[in-house]
Amino acid sequence: MSDDILQRLMAVLASRKDADPDSSYVARLYHEGLDSILKKIGEESAETIIAAKSGDPKQIIHETADLWFHCLVMLAQQNLEARQVLEELERRFGLSGLDEKAAREQTN
Amino acid sequence: MSDDILQRLMAVLASRKDADPDSSYVARLYHEGLDSILKKIGEESAETIIAAKSGDPKQIIHETADLWFHCLVMLAQQNLEARQVLEELERRFGLSGLDEKAAREQTN
Amino acid sequence: MSDDILQRLMAVLASRKDADPDSSYVARLYHEGLDSILKKIGEESAETIIAAKSGDPKQIIHETADLWFHCLVMLAQQNLEARQVLEELERRFGLSGLDEKAAREQTN
Amino acid sequence: MSDDILQRLMAVLASRKDADPDSSYVARLYHEGLDSILKKIGEESAETIIAAKSGDPKQIIHETADLWFHCLVMLAQQNLEARQVLEELERRFGLSGLDEKAAREQTN
Repeated sequence: MSDDILQRLMAVLASRKDADPDSSYVARLYHEGLDSILKKIGEESAETIIAAKSGDPKQIIHETADLWFHCLVMLAQQNLEARQVLEELERRFGLSGLDEKAAREQTN
Repeated sequence: MSDDILQRLMAVLASRKDADPDSSYVARLYHEGLDSILKKIGEESAETIIAAKSGDPKQIIHETADLWFHCLVMLAQQNLEARQVLEELERRFGLSGLDEKAAREQTN
Repeated sequence: MSDDILQRLMAVLASRKDADPDSSYVARLYHEGLDSILKKIGEESAETIIAAKSGDPKQIIHETADLWFHCLVMLAQQNLEARQVLEELERRFGLSGLDEKAAREQTN
Repeated sequence: MSDDILQRLMAVLASRKDADPDSSYVARLYHEGLDSILKKIGEESAETIIAAKSGDPKQIIHETADLWFHCLVMLAQQNLEARQVLEELERRFGLSGLDEKAAREQTN
């Protein structure tokens, strides 16, 4: 399944933390520091909003991927894991009986 | 694995699209329409930035989960899938030989 | 002239800094602190972007006013002045010979 | 007074609307279109939030000026006026007896 892409991507991102700033886009972002990463989160969330208002599905997927990607870089820079975000989402929504029931009904 | 939480959450979100606006937070968001969902994306990205600047790990996870959650609601409202965003991330990063090598080296 | 509204508004905002949190919206924002003010800046910038994409002039003016207003509250909370922002804009654009020439040509 | 800087800046911005895209930064922004201008508003609002969290007064003034500047470019591109935003602010806050009283008390 494509699902564990977030985990695998986190492994790539973690491996870049000590890389030469000139070796990749992510290595340069780490080197510039947290503020540069957060500016990208602000920029990409604006681009996601603009894409959604434009109603172009390809662009929406592209910009949402950019936004999530820079969130992953921020998490890696802060020594956090995408898994923790997924577990937070699960805790809030996945374990509720009501939610599970809704999901089951839809897939039946 | 916690990974398929995004897929399961999308199923819950899809099941709520025709629900009574008073039945849940998400049902109300759908009813209010795309602009309301996008405002939440803008709001939650600002809260993610603020949490990261404050350096509180718990708050960072909480706000990133909020941001991704409202992205999922937007995708559902636009009849798109989280899977498409994950595949876009995989296409960009996961399939590159260089990236895979970096990930392998790190986990060895 | 309507121009000095920013200055007059700053005086109102400064006068509210020690007010009872229950006495006004701004007094409550101050009481909640910087993060609450910054969340509003994030929220209102998203709403400005959404209004501009919707192309509704009234809404654009409304949301831009909201965005600038919360910037003024942030400046007041940080003991800064709108005047300093205007002077920064003047320094960058108003004093350039090229810019003045462009402005003159347009008004002739 | 420095106050009418917004009006003078709007005149400069209006004069650039038909300029060669290579002639200035603003001419290029117009040429790229509304989405490019709105991306800058998203980016600069994130930078304003980051500067305020960093607590550096110079940076706060700098980024707020950037944010307002790109709002002015958006207004010009939409054939709107900064004056309309100022009047909206005045309408909401300046004409209220309560607000005027608060401002008067502070300056006495």
